[in-house]
Amino acid sequence: MRGVMMYGPGDVRVEERPDPVVERPTDAVIRLSAACVCGSDLWPYRGQDRLDGPTPMGHEYVGVVEQIGSAVTTVKPGDFVIGSFFASDNTCEICRAGYQSRCIHAELMGTIGTQAELARVPLADGTLVAVPGTPDAGLIPSFLAASDVLGTGWFAAVAAEAGPGKTVAVVGDGAVGLLGVLAAKQLGADRIIAMSRHEPRQQLAVEYGATDIVTERGDAGVARIKELTGGYGAHSVIEAVGTQESMMQAIRATRPGGHVGYVGVAHDVSLPGDELFFSGVHLHGGPAPVRQYLPTLIDLISRRVIDPGKVFDLSLPLDDAAQAYEAMDRRKAIKALLQP
Amino acid sequence: MRGVMMYGPGDVRVEERPDPVVERPTDAVIRLSAACVCGSDLWPYRGQDRLDGPTPMGHEYVGVVEQIGSAVTTVKPGDFVIGSFFASDNTCEICRAGYQSRCIHAELMGTIGTQAELARVPLADGTLVAVPGTPDAGLIPSFLAASDVLGTGWFAAVAAEAGPGKTVAVVGDGAVGLLGVLAAKQLGADRIIAMSRHEPRQQLAVEYGATDIVTERGDAGVARIKELTGGYGAHSVIEAVGTQESMMQAIRATRPGGHVGYVGVAHDVSLPGDELFFSGVHLHGGPAPVRQYLPTLIDLISRRVIDPGKVFDLSLPLDDAAQAYEAMDRRKAIKALLQP
Repeated sequence: MRGVMMYGPGDVRVEERPDPVVERPTDAVIRLSAACVCGSDLWPYRGQDRLDGPTPMGHEYVGVVEQIGSAVTTVKPGDFVIGSFFASDNTCEICRAGYQSRCIHAELMGTIGTQAELARVPLADGTLVAVPGTPDAGLIPSFLAASDVLGTGWFAAVAAEAGPGKTVAVVGDGAVGLLGVLAAKQLGADRIIAMSRHEPRQQLAVEYGATDIVTERGDAGVARIKELTGGYGAHSVIEAVGTQESMMQAIRATRPGGHVGYVGVAHDVSLPGDELFFSGVHLHGGPAPVRQYLPTLIDLISRRVIDPGKVFDLSLPLDDAAQAYEAMDRRKAIKALLQP
Repeated sequence: MRGVMMYGPGDVRVEERPDPVVERPTDAVIRLSAACVCGSDLWPYRGQDRLDGPTPMGHEYVGVVEQIGSAVTTVKPGDFVIGSFFASDNTCEICRAGYQSRCIHAELMGTIGTQAELARVPLADGTLVAVPGTPDAGLIPSFLAASDVLGTGWFAAVAAEAGPGKTVAVVGDGAVGLLGVLAAKQLGADRIIAMSRHEPRQQLAVEYGATDIVTERGDAGVARIKELTGGYGAHSVIEAVGTQESMMQAIRATRPGGHVGYVGVAHDVSLPGDELFFSGVHLHGGPAPVRQYLPTLIDLISRRVIDPGKVFDLSLPLDDAAQAYEAMDRRKAIKALLQP
């Protein structure tokens, strides 16, 4: 099969790789219907994360089951399935509490590489959720979004306790931030402030439910959020970047007793204990337990209540993966879909 | 009147100071029935916090109202009252959400100094809660505890989401940690693990509801908590120290998706973003909104359901304040009460 490999910063290649097979009785092998490039794939692309040699890429996926191991009971060949970037058993105490991304048996799909024609999915019973019937081709981008960016934005909105009566601010206008806006809207937030200075992203934010756009960043951005919230700060802030500046912006834009939901993968972030202490905010985040939300998200997508697939503003054949990475790196695309 | 002043590290004196008076229509002046030394008073005593010249000390108080300003309506001279270490209006959006310690008009009682015969309490209507009737003298230490250490331990237990079905671990065996044990018990926690290596404190922890004692600290302490919780970590961890070691011990002892309630005033703490991200814990804390809990705590104390006053294992006349500080600094006393 063909699959994406990263050799080093800026060096993405599509190569022939061995077809994955069922290795353990709990595995499934799926044929990908669509794959994509994640904002987090840009960290090694930009040299900000180190790679230990050539690495298979990709952790988001939707596809059709080809083979299952002897212990798999909840999906069967032919099923159209979605899973999260963490495989999980969905039975341990951590999973049952809704934190499947931190399952005691969790396996990161990124080490498997789903920017490919085929992928092995460990712990298939716990990980995969089947979409009833054969989905309309037009819904595939939205189902693919559910695999990570939608599930992650949703978790961020839940962690930030977005809901009725709340003002939610969103730091970050990538796919996750934009889908955080969508999630906050679905969860019933009264007011949603998107922080963005990129016009096409502002437009999509508004389409997804943003009521206000703030173009300022850092201290000026915080001051603007305070100004819009009677001096108190937002009740809920979604952080979807992962830098020191974005984390501090999120914490400072939140009122005391409010909630920060942070999902940007932290890079060189160090939180000052005294400022955090006196901020009085709730801080929750980390790798999103997307598995928890998949049934809800599949339902909302199937009923066309939400259209998260719009974050894919570029679609390319798998063989053009290098071009997809470049477009996202240069912010020419919000998110690139790859057709295997 | 007489009151405690700190001149510098280790230098505590009781001096004649001007009687406080009603300065603003919203003020009350109270005559203290009891005062005490707080663990946080030891930071400047040990030279770890800098003082700008001689400073009045004390922020915990119970007493009888002597005078009220013209705008005060909820308490009257003769009432026995309790307030928190932050005066608060109890009407702003932050107060109404239960975060009175971060009231937009908050004033720190520590700058007023309640280790004294009399104290001015700003925003009396929002700050003070009257105890019905004249309390039994034996209950005064418990009511005094409600002013800070009990309210703070209670907030930590609430922030850690202690409750039925939960295993709660408590980092710190000072008065706040011990009362965090008491709070976790009252909130219905199944199992409460106190981390302490001091025998008298272990005993009080058990009396307050601890089911297990862990004497190990740091990584060994975390390993022991994991061992006691099926490898998962505690659901809820109360942090009541405020150092880098204690914060990391609390975060690491918590299972993914679990809750850390931290109330130790952070000193030189810096939280590594990547570890926090992948921990998947909820982090909440800061200066406790004690005012929120006062009605509940007064009720529990009045009905003798709880006996938080036991944390006072030393009682001295106000004039012997220096001796009280020394006893707490050397850990010869858990908490020292001062009789004005």
